[in-house]
Amino acid sequence: MLVLDLLGVFFFAVSGSLLAARRDFDIVGSIMLASLVGLGGGVIRDLVIDQDVPNAFRMPIYILPPVLAVLSVYFHLFGVRRLRRTLMMFDAGGLALFCVTGTITALESGMGAVTAALLGLTTAVGGGIMRDAVSNEIPQVFNPRGVYAIPAMVGAALTSSLWTLGWLNAVTGTVVAGLVFGARVLSLRYGWRVPLASGIGKSLP
Amino acid sequence: MLVLDLLGVFFFAVSGSLLAARRDFDIVGSIMLASLVGLGGGVIRDLVIDQDVPNAFRMPIYILPPVLAVLSVYFHLFGVRRLRRTLMMFDAGGLALFCVTGTITALESGMGAVTAALLGLTTAVGGGIMRDAVSNEIPQVFNPRGVYAIPAMVGAALTSSLWTLGWLNAVTGTVVAGLVFGARVLSLRYGWRVPLASGIGKSLP
Amino acid sequence: MLVLDLLGVFFFAVSGSLLAARRDFDIVGSIMLASLVGLGGGVIRDLVIDQDVPNAFRMPIYILPPVLAVLSVYFHLFGVRRLRRTLMMFDAGGLALFCVTGTITALESGMGAVTAALLGLTTAVGGGIMRDAVSNEIPQVFNPRGVYAIPAMVGAALTSSLWTLGWLNAVTGTVVAGLVFGARVLSLRYGWRVPLASGIGKSLP
Repeated sequence: MLVLDLLGVFFFAVSGSLLAARRDFDIVGSIMLASLVGLGGGVIRDLVIDQDVPNAFRMPIYILPPVLAVLSVYFHLFGVRRLRRTLMMFDAGGLALFCVTGTITALESGMGAVTAALLGLTTAVGGGIMRDAVSNEIPQVFNPRGVYAIPAMVGAALTSSLWTLGWLNAVTGTVVAGLVFGARVLSLRYGWRVPLASGIGKSLP
Repeated sequence: MLVLDLLGVFFFAVSGSLLAARRDFDIVGSIMLASLVGLGGGVIRDLVIDQDVPNAFRMPIYILPPVLAVLSVYFHLFGVRRLRRTLMMFDAGGLALFCVTGTITALESGMGAVTAALLGLTTAVGGGIMRDAVSNEIPQVFNPRGVYAIPAMVGAALTSSLWTLGWLNAVTGTVVAGLVFGARVLSLRYGWRVPLASGIGKSLP
Repeated sequence: MLVLDLLGVFFFAVSGSLLAARRDFDIVGSIMLASLVGLGGGVIRDLVIDQDVPNAFRMPIYILPPVLAVLSVYFHLFGVRRLRRTLMMFDAGGLALFCVTGTITALESGMGAVTAALLGLTTAVGGGIMRDAVSNEIPQVFNPRGVYAIPAMVGAALTSSLWTLGWLNAVTGTVVAGLVFGARVLSLRYGWRVPLASGIGKSLP
């Protein structure tokens, strides 16, 4: 669990570092943005659960993934040609892992099934919203191209259901995360869309 | 109380859905924005109060108003001609209800009169600030046209005072909310203004 | 300690009021922005620490610095000619004081040395990030001109180390804050930079 959670932090942190690179932030600003997106969603979850101190502040190992993410971007470990596409892949990876690990963390703290799924969703989308809000970007979760919140909702609900049925283990958890990741990536690849909020007809004035 | 609070969530959620429609978000992004503006202020209040789990996560019924708001905007239940004006009306309704219900929630949790009024104000303006911050809009509370925070401050202070005097009930609470709503709407209609922060003379360079 | 913390709130609040003045917010919007930047970082710290109610809501005296800051900007007590430069100076003052007082507050609540330093850093940069995020500015902490987070990190780590060694007192604490302030101001004056997140070569496409 801890490994998967740290991997989720790393994925989101890479997305933050790539955005920082594109925006010409320096490496320290990059560490700050990577930490915000990687740890922000989990901190909100932990504050809501009201356990003593959020993991990100209590366990110093949570500082490691953002630092590694910044270094890997700085040394161009990931293709920087199609930076935006790479960013979206890592963002999808963080989303997929966090909707599972976030829900499990909430369930392990004694939350009910519905509350835990809501917290898993919050963990999954919270960091990305903060990353984009402080960078003056419109958050991915609001981008009508592709689906974003739906796979996270389904992933969190599945995780919560599997737990309640006693069927949640390393295999099923990974399968759920894989499904979420696959749905997100395919939706970007093929431009899946859900109806616009403005309803029938064209967009509003 | 719960009904009034859910109504406040609904009003703010409609404001979020209308903004989502104007920005060409899809219906899922609209649900996320409607939830953020409708529930965000109350979650901060509940975290500050340090009760176990914020209402929005503990009571699943709080998901209902954002969903209804998104549907009502999707099916054009509210005039979409003057979308910005409609948005401001619903925002005013949420502001008016939340400065009362937010203060009462804090008082019922044992907060002192001043802390409770500050929390009522935070509940009332917090969700709208989040809505606008993630949408890259300058929050309404900073817009010099009309008054926004002042009626919410007065409403929260009145609610707290009436409670302390033992005069708070369904009637007086509704009157306070009505006064806040009226002041906000009239200030927009007639362009009331308070002095600019830059002080005497013209705005700063 | 309380005096230094209130002074930090005042410094950050002035930075918020100056930004409000430059953006043509009115005095009430200015109070809201000044409160957000002055109190936001500390509220997050207190929520993470999980003490009962954050200081800013529990002790009404914390409302005073934002109000004084708004009045001092309104009456042009600080040179308004070079508004941006004045803003940066006050922001540096808040950063310097908060990385010390934020760390001490966390240590006094029983946090470990590393957690306390992280919370001191969060207190120091959190309010400024919120100020800039809601005003649609790219936060100072991401600006590659000058150093921002590094002096705050060093200041928080020094404070935590001095406390652990039993050497922290009014004098050493003030020296640390002075060093942080000096480093920040000199870095702006001489345009110190750290490497860009995009790594070797030019910025990414």
